[in-house]
Amino acid sequence: MQQIIILIHCKDQKGIIAAVTNFILKIEGNIIYIDQHVDVEQDVFFMRLECELTNKTVSLAAVKNDFQQTIATDFKMSWELYLKEQKPRMALFVSKYDHCLFDILGRFSAGELNIEIPLIISNHEDLKPVAARFKIPFFYIPFTKENKEDGEKQQIELLQKHTIDFVVLARYMQIITPKMIGLYENKIINIHHSFLPAFPGAKPYHSAFKRGVKIIGATSHYVTQELDEGPIIEQDITRVSHVNSIEDFIMKGRDLERIVLARAIKLHAERKTMVYSNKTVVFS
Amino acid sequence: MQQIIILIHCKDQKGIIAAVTNFILKIEGNIIYIDQHVDVEQDVFFMRLECELTNKTVSLAAVKNDFQQTIATDFKMSWELYLKEQKPRMALFVSKYDHCLFDILGRFSAGELNIEIPLIISNHEDLKPVAARFKIPFFYIPFTKENKEDGEKQQIELLQKHTIDFVVLARYMQIITPKMIGLYENKIINIHHSFLPAFPGAKPYHSAFKRGVKIIGATSHYVTQELDEGPIIEQDITRVSHVNSIEDFIMKGRDLERIVLARAIKLHAERKTMVYSNKTVVFS
Amino acid sequence: MQQIIILIHCKDQKGIIAAVTNFILKIEGNIIYIDQHVDVEQDVFFMRLECELTNKTVSLAAVKNDFQQTIATDFKMSWELYLKEQKPRMALFVSKYDHCLFDILGRFSAGELNIEIPLIISNHEDLKPVAARFKIPFFYIPFTKENKEDGEKQQIELLQKHTIDFVVLARYMQIITPKMIGLYENKIINIHHSFLPAFPGAKPYHSAFKRGVKIIGATSHYVTQELDEGPIIEQDITRVSHVNSIEDFIMKGRDLERIVLARAIKLHAERKTMVYSNKTVVFS
Amino acid sequence: MQQIIILIHCKDQKGIIAAVTNFILKIEGNIIYIDQHVDVEQDVFFMRLECELTNKTVSLAAVKNDFQQTIATDFKMSWELYLKEQKPRMALFVSKYDHCLFDILGRFSAGELNIEIPLIISNHEDLKPVAARFKIPFFYIPFTKENKEDGEKQQIELLQKHTIDFVVLARYMQIITPKMIGLYENKIINIHHSFLPAFPGAKPYHSAFKRGVKIIGATSHYVTQELDEGPIIEQDITRVSHVNSIEDFIMKGRDLERIVLARAIKLHAERKTMVYSNKTVVFS
Repeated sequence: MQQIIILIHCKDQKGIIAAVTNFILKIEGNIIYIDQHVDVEQDVFFMRLECELTNKTVSLAAVKNDFQQTIATDFKMSWELYLKEQKPRMALFVSKYDHCLFDILGRFSAGELNIEIPLIISNHEDLKPVAARFKIPFFYIPFTKENKEDGEKQQIELLQKHTIDFVVLARYMQIITPKMIGLYENKIINIHHSFLPAFPGAKPYHSAFKRGVKIIGATSHYVTQELDEGPIIEQDITRVSHVNSIEDFIMKGRDLERIVLARAIKLHAERKTMVYSNKTVVFS
Repeated sequence: MQQIIILIHCKDQKGIIAAVTNFILKIEGNIIYIDQHVDVEQDVFFMRLECELTNKTVSLAAVKNDFQQTIATDFKMSWELYLKEQKPRMALFVSKYDHCLFDILGRFSAGELNIEIPLIISNHEDLKPVAARFKIPFFYIPFTKENKEDGEKQQIELLQKHTIDFVVLARYMQIITPKMIGLYENKIINIHHSFLPAFPGAKPYHSAFKRGVKIIGATSHYVTQELDEGPIIEQDITRVSHVNSIEDFIMKGRDLERIVLARAIKLHAERKTMVYSNKTVVFS
Repeated sequence: MQQIIILIHCKDQKGIIAAVTNFILKIEGNIIYIDQHVDVEQDVFFMRLECELTNKTVSLAAVKNDFQQTIATDFKMSWELYLKEQKPRMALFVSKYDHCLFDILGRFSAGELNIEIPLIISNHEDLKPVAARFKIPFFYIPFTKENKEDGEKQQIELLQKHTIDFVVLARYMQIITPKMIGLYENKIINIHHSFLPAFPGAKPYHSAFKRGVKIIGATSHYVTQELDEGPIIEQDITRVSHVNSIEDFIMKGRDLERIVLARAIKLHAERKTMVYSNKTVVFS
Repeated sequence: MQQIIILIHCKDQKGIIAAVTNFILKIEGNIIYIDQHVDVEQDVFFMRLECELTNKTVSLAAVKNDFQQTIATDFKMSWELYLKEQKPRMALFVSKYDHCLFDILGRFSAGELNIEIPLIISNHEDLKPVAARFKIPFFYIPFTKENKEDGEKQQIELLQKHTIDFVVLARYMQIITPKMIGLYENKIINIHHSFLPAFPGAKPYHSAFKRGVKIIGATSHYVTQELDEGPIIEQDITRVSHVNSIEDFIMKGRDLERIVLARAIKLHAERKTMVYSNKTVVFS
């Protein structure tokens, strides 16, 4: 039996839920999960729906066409439909830090992530052995400030060649250019090692230590042109105190980075996130 | 404009959401909030819905009747409909501990709880001045083991006379009898000072201290005949360590008790909880 | 038996702990609690010590004098000695928000805080009835932008007349002037309704909502001349999601504000905080 | 310069701290870290101390001998002294679950754990490739109920041959016999997938799901003869709700198990834990 995921957003209007659920009834779908959200301020409606198509003679193309012709047109919806069994293809970008990479590849190997990882790209060779250990192709694309454009061109070619669906910056220490951001809008996930909007930019643990905070955090977000200002997917924190040195902050932070990035990857891979107004709706 | 809350549960079936949302459309209701849950194991469907009735000529009695005659009958639903503006009436049972009482009355005075508190009942006189301070009628009903039945009879008469909707045991140190539990099924909320099912019964902080746990908790639950085994509404925890004495456990626990009980009261008062199979569905 | 608390800080040097503990032995003190901290970066030593004086013929004045003449001079210490039984005297400053006030007075009435509260000061009359309910003298000192200096003069006179040890701003919506800050350095505690340094200044919940954070927080800190930049005493957070409105943020935040401010008051009242380099050492 | 760690416990007495710190002064040690704890109920004193020996001509054997002859004898101390640079040797026991194994080996490879891992032992062959990937010797020791004694004999021989200091059961699904527990008292660390003492024994996630708890947890503890009743080293929790299936509990629990076990390993490896009365003192 085919399982599909539908994501919808549109202006909030009377009767949307009735229309959608009537449509599912019509195509003999069995709703497994449905959740919706209304942004009252901005008057936007969001829905995520999972259903099984019990009638095997129904073609997916026909369902899509029917949906577009009827409801989607009536309510002026933006919508996406995914086959649940189809794994999204993720590229990992890394530099020298290996803790997030080990964590992601460990989870991947343990079967926790419903994704494919066709490649890892890095501007350094340091983590090539880690990639080798997990048998993931590793592409070393060095660049300097002067030829960064060339480097990125090669990166994009690789992403396109491998039909990558989304990119994860696993402590990748380079700024992504507007060109690539434009190609992968709301499809590049970064992990920032602070509780944003506190301590954006470089060396957040050092700033947190200096400020004497009692809690540190990590934030995963979609990359936008404004550094560390993209839509937040997930955040978490841990307590610190005066007994903790900067090294302790960094060590405790590594666990936060691992967990928060892993959760964001899982949410994105399961199509549970929707972006609007530089925020996310994150369905359960 | 009238705002109503509808709670529904029934066997899971195709088309329930479509039917309910079509019904709301028909009565010109504007859905403000809708959430649903399916217990896949037990095949039960739950829904909570808030809507505004935009057509002022529609009578509530007619809506109820219509709903019962059509959808509720078709799907064999159990359901309840509340007017949002109608505040539930809560009775407080206390003994000698005052921290939860102060917290609840403080929140009530600060306008945080959409309830009425017609009375406080106690088997001790100690907290009478607190009740007086907040101008809530206080009924002192003393009893001994021998005449506990008499005491409870008086309690029930008071509850009925004041048309109480639900009862909160704010560190009330007496067992509730099956008779009263039967009259107020899933309407008596207790706060237990441990992370249930760990440390049920008496002196949980002492047991937690002896066991050397690193985290202590509190649990609010509906009272059933099995002591500390009723459906859990809310739980929370706090960290402890070897430096903490039993007195520290108790002091830290007071904050947990306050917060966890206050959350449970708020959830119940806003009709966000549903009970089945000795568990709760807690809508957001 | 007299119980004393000693707080020490000085340049880190070999032999401090040995010297202090030898001194306690000499005066026949029984150490109940001792903790120390070294700020390695800045080379500063901190200690907090509680002890019982088992020899009743020992006078406190003699102990103080002896300590100053010997160890304190040798190690060039800054130090303070408190009698544990002597309750610090706290003034509350409020405006119109009542939730922190109810919480503090509830805790105070329940015997949780080892302090005296000789007075509440406000620039509005709204919370006078709350003060009356808890039988705390309430002083209404109104002022406008033009005569703020006059108002503060009256406040300071009241604080001095009542020999106030520390001041708590329980959601007091006015800036404290440098003059008062100078008189009560590291003795004025504020509660800010965000996870500092994120969202300083006005309307942090609105800013947090707009930014789409997944966690909100509250911060208690000592007041310095830089707004919301004083030494942080305590912070805590709670999760939020896209389903939460600004009103939900504010409601959830109230619980954070209550708890975080109450913890800060307790820590300060028990002489567990020390300030340096715009940070706090918070002993357990 | 040599760095040493000293752990002490003995009956609480006046003058211990003075004596120990005087001793460190005498051997020209520079205290980097010192913390102590008194269990008031049981009248036991605990201390952990890190210091640098600034005088290079001082021999460690002489220090040990001196300490034993003087202070340790005077105060009837139990004590241990470790060289900080000497990495403890850890054996991993696994069965079929790989998530904790991946996490530990990932952390080990990333340099987070100051240990050596000379071997992995398993009663199944499933995880051999994971061990190979990280180049750790893997010993497959199968056994049935009938020949379990034989199996354990082989395990113990391996542990002794490789001079193993402590053993970590990374979701090892077998009961450890009293014989091995006796040989490695307070040196075998288990991870239990519940918030002990709630849900001991088999299938805790299933029990937690059935009970309808709102929070699940994990507990790392030293193994004793009473199943899941050994001294607790670390615990942590995560929130769940009615929307979570048993599969969700298990998935969320995996992250708890990883983190809680990793923290316990780190604490033990850094000699920060002390055991008494079936509890732990965990120094910061």
